[in-house]
Amino acid sequence: MVRIELQIDLNYEIDEHGADFVFNIHAAHTLSQTISAEKLLLSQPVSTRLHTDPVSGSRYLRASGLPGHLALTYSATADLLHHRAEPAQLAEVPVRDLPPEVIGYVYPSRYCESDRLINLAIREFGGLPQGYQRVMAIRDWVQQRVTFRPGASNSNTSAVDTLIEQAGVCRDFAHLMIALCRALSIPARFATGTDYGADVALGPPDFHAYVEVYVGGRWYIFDPSGTAIPMAFVRLGTGRDAADVAVATIFGGVKAQPPVINARAVDDPSRGMELPHHCREALSTDSGPLA
Amino acid sequence: MVRIELQIDLNYEIDEHGADFVFNIHAAHTLSQTISAEKLLLSQPVSTRLHTDPVSGSRYLRASGLPGHLALTYSATADLLHHRAEPAQLAEVPVRDLPPEVIGYVYPSRYCESDRLINLAIREFGGLPQGYQRVMAIRDWVQQRVTFRPGASNSNTSAVDTLIEQAGVCRDFAHLMIALCRALSIPARFATGTDYGADVALGPPDFHAYVEVYVGGRWYIFDPSGTAIPMAFVRLGTGRDAADVAVATIFGGVKAQPPVINARAVDDPSRGMELPHHCREALSTDSGPLA
Amino acid sequence: MVRIELQIDLNYEIDEHGADFVFNIHAAHTLSQTISAEKLLLSQPVSTRLHTDPVSGSRYLRASGLPGHLALTYSATADLLHHRAEPAQLAEVPVRDLPPEVIGYVYPSRYCESDRLINLAIREFGGLPQGYQRVMAIRDWVQQRVTFRPGASNSNTSAVDTLIEQAGVCRDFAHLMIALCRALSIPARFATGTDYGADVALGPPDFHAYVEVYVGGRWYIFDPSGTAIPMAFVRLGTGRDAADVAVATIFGGVKAQPPVINARAVDDPSRGMELPHHCREALSTDSGPLA
Amino acid sequence: MVRIELQIDLNYEIDEHGADFVFNIHAAHTLSQTISAEKLLLSQPVSTRLHTDPVSGSRYLRASGLPGHLALTYSATADLLHHRAEPAQLAEVPVRDLPPEVIGYVYPSRYCESDRLINLAIREFGGLPQGYQRVMAIRDWVQQRVTFRPGASNSNTSAVDTLIEQAGVCRDFAHLMIALCRALSIPARFATGTDYGADVALGPPDFHAYVEVYVGGRWYIFDPSGTAIPMAFVRLGTGRDAADVAVATIFGGVKAQPPVINARAVDDPSRGMELPHHCREALSTDSGPLA
Repeated sequence: MVRIELQIDLNYEIDEHGADFVFNIHAAHTLSQTISAEKLLLSQPVSTRLHTDPVSGSRYLRASGLPGHLALTYSATADLLHHRAEPAQLAEVPVRDLPPEVIGYVYPSRYCESDRLINLAIREFGGLPQGYQRVMAIRDWVQQRVTFRPGASNSNTSAVDTLIEQAGVCRDFAHLMIALCRALSIPARFATGTDYGADVALGPPDFHAYVEVYVGGRWYIFDPSGTAIPMAFVRLGTGRDAADVAVATIFGGVKAQPPVINARAVDDPSRGMELPHHCREALSTDSGPLA
Repeated sequence: MVRIELQIDLNYEIDEHGADFVFNIHAAHTLSQTISAEKLLLSQPVSTRLHTDPVSGSRYLRASGLPGHLALTYSATADLLHHRAEPAQLAEVPVRDLPPEVIGYVYPSRYCESDRLINLAIREFGGLPQGYQRVMAIRDWVQQRVTFRPGASNSNTSAVDTLIEQAGVCRDFAHLMIALCRALSIPARFATGTDYGADVALGPPDFHAYVEVYVGGRWYIFDPSGTAIPMAFVRLGTGRDAADVAVATIFGGVKAQPPVINARAVDDPSRGMELPHHCREALSTDSGPLA
Repeated sequence: MVRIELQIDLNYEIDEHGADFVFNIHAAHTLSQTISAEKLLLSQPVSTRLHTDPVSGSRYLRASGLPGHLALTYSATADLLHHRAEPAQLAEVPVRDLPPEVIGYVYPSRYCESDRLINLAIREFGGLPQGYQRVMAIRDWVQQRVTFRPGASNSNTSAVDTLIEQAGVCRDFAHLMIALCRALSIPARFATGTDYGADVALGPPDFHAYVEVYVGGRWYIFDPSGTAIPMAFVRLGTGRDAADVAVATIFGGVKAQPPVINARAVDDPSRGMELPHHCREALSTDSGPLA
Repeated sequence: MVRIELQIDLNYEIDEHGADFVFNIHAAHTLSQTISAEKLLLSQPVSTRLHTDPVSGSRYLRASGLPGHLALTYSATADLLHHRAEPAQLAEVPVRDLPPEVIGYVYPSRYCESDRLINLAIREFGGLPQGYQRVMAIRDWVQQRVTFRPGASNSNTSAVDTLIEQAGVCRDFAHLMIALCRALSIPARFATGTDYGADVALGPPDFHAYVEVYVGGRWYIFDPSGTAIPMAFVRLGTGRDAADVAVATIFGGVKAQPPVINARAVDDPSRGMELPHHCREALSTDSGPLA
């Protein structure tokens, strides 16, 4: 088991009209991710509502901010107990056998225009043996072609843009990998979380975007930007792409400061806790919420 | 009440590998749309599975077609009893008050890149009084700018393309109207159905794409292409955009013939049935399924 | 006559491989623009070649920079004696009567995708009386829709992007106006120069991008961003769009500092010099070089 | 020497307003391409003007068509005497040494967005030895990735679209190859001509689009679609991309029938004429006109 102690600090300046927020900063409740010791502090005396998506376990916090400064601090302890599998044993699931709640993830979305990439995906990956290994080949292909370069992309950048311009941040790597999987009818979705173990040269700890792909009957984690240690990702949300799971969707005139994120792994073998590390097994956080 | 007797005929040639289909041709079960006398015939002895989406009431049929010809005939009687409202009384719902299952419809999607249209939407519509009438102004704006021209667009065409090139079919009108609504944080979704009363000059009866917008606490029907009579639309599916609710999503090598669609209104005032006609009231089919 | 005393300072840091430059910072030699007292200083002892385009009079300086700092200073005096015309008397020229060297400017180019804007341009401007006034209507349309916002665009941004996103800098205003003119078969080209009289709130004096449109048998100046005084523009280059007339096209690894530009008008009525001011007459710098 | 006897038949229906045409169907006069026995017939008694571009030798015919049917027949004999070179001896020319009239062909253009492909081009081809062989590697890369499929593209399709969707016609292959060359600062241009020897499965003889790349101090022919025999191409025009050298640019309401093209090689060894065949040498038609 991996235990992560997490703290997220967000700061905004809201203009004179006030602004509405939808935050997705609560760690998701899933079968593999147990959350405890959760605290949420807002600097304004505003009412909030927390909604848990019944399918994904993602939690959305809505708040209406008043003009002026708004600070939000979220802290929690996340215990991660992944389902692990042998990569060679994870087969792709034929479209005819996909569960209804999964099939939407083979369709194109705002930032993952898989409908335009079908020829390319078939040419590059169509001849490979199907399964987890083919998905790994897609991940590697993306990682080899795209350069991590903050500032090279913006919030409008899509998978097609990234395929052409070959530079971006974790979100762009994720969108391109997802689009390629879907072009082959492999369900893939966008996940946001907190990273851990990222190269400090890439900047301070930040929110992270990565990919979950449905093979062998479960959603498995892939990290196409290759910047962090997947075993330590605390999942916040999953969706079609970044449009669905922005950490903060803001309606109104707001200036945001960079988030401050702290994710510390607890190293206590006596209690069965191990430090996060790269591993060759496939890791799944099981998509389901606590039923 | 409007009663529509419906028949849909689809024909495909499937290549030697066979193909998987997800059809969305069953009329949706909703509180306002009652379906009876339903029949489905397939020319191949293949097993099918029908899945009803618990939120939208849309029904998805999955089938694995064998090589060769596949014919599918669906017929049903749909009784439509719309919720009607006075347009002037339908206000927009602030983001903070949107139900959780509605909020996803203010986000951009594959064919509705609302994130790129915010400046434009605010400039064109930001000064208008909020409510149903503003949505009508968006509908009119789209209708005035886009020319109905089969062949001017294809399955990759998005709202941004249509805004630039100003020609397309009903699907393109719908995508552009949806994108503009979302750019103003008004929830809007894509609906497919069968049309009725369309100008014969536009071709034989066909599937139709239109828009539902969430105002006054319900989803109301809008027909930006202005080609048919909304009161007679039999709803098949709703989704983010055409990616979600294709009448047929096909995985494999298949040639499709044009669909043949027959929608006949029953004119029987003695049983409370009226013929579909244009009306100035707002019409809602209530988004909910039969709970 | 308007006399402008001009100084341009450019500074670059060149990486260890050196870099090639094509500068277009010399004021063009045209029938209306007489250049004197010209000086060019480079901080590196590198050989340069100056090429004058025989058609446009634009001058291109090529230099191969060595690793390290490269500073370039160009100064000159430009005497501007515009051809002036009464707007109401400037008719559009039918395509059949365009001179061969002009016809290329009705074709689409990298940043001016006029081929996609034909429906839109005809709908918006097709019913207006032809001539200079119609071009003014296009200029006003662009000015009303696009917001001047540094950082909203980048070097890949095209007219279609600007039409959608409605924000940009002078270059983007110019591209959109050019694309709309060409969509109506009105020849239009991109011009670079130095600005004068720009609102200081927009930042320090800078290079400027504006538009020349061929009506009444000559190229006339239009300033769609509306940020400066056209009578004082010192023309550097003209081309299809920004791809042709970058102030500096750089081949190699180079970091550029912001340019420092000084354009001072000489106020000496005794010698026939007037200060630049906005005027209602049409101004042409005559496209031709000193034959 | 290769002798081609050429006939081109074009047919149009012009609407009631008449229409202006700019044709580029005359075989270019160049040092390597000698034209004789030229005939032009128009079915309407309209005046025409023929303009020869002084730089490229391309000839443009302007005509104003009357309402109704317009038929145009052009026939000529073209004697092609290519400059031939050993591929291994053709080096790339550094930007600093490019002639002024060539440098424009490293800039991006409407259908060749080389500015967006720099990372990709460097990653794929940056490590290869420079010269003709690197250009061949680009040609092969394009040929391997793009599938020849009429109907997969339209007149708005650009190199970026083709890179993503990987299907198109000769024009699309050419645009993508050009964009990749320019992204590496190798001058490349679009050429139109008549093809010869194309696989009949691809359809009847047609106009052809191919590429000329500037290496070793000359423009050499490349045929990225690989559909015909370069030695027999009769050059009509060259330009930045298809925007510059449309076979017919039409201003007005016109319906075009498919062109009928006949290109016959004369096989007469006694007069030094050989039949066109694939050869491993580099072929140049010398860009210059008859000076």
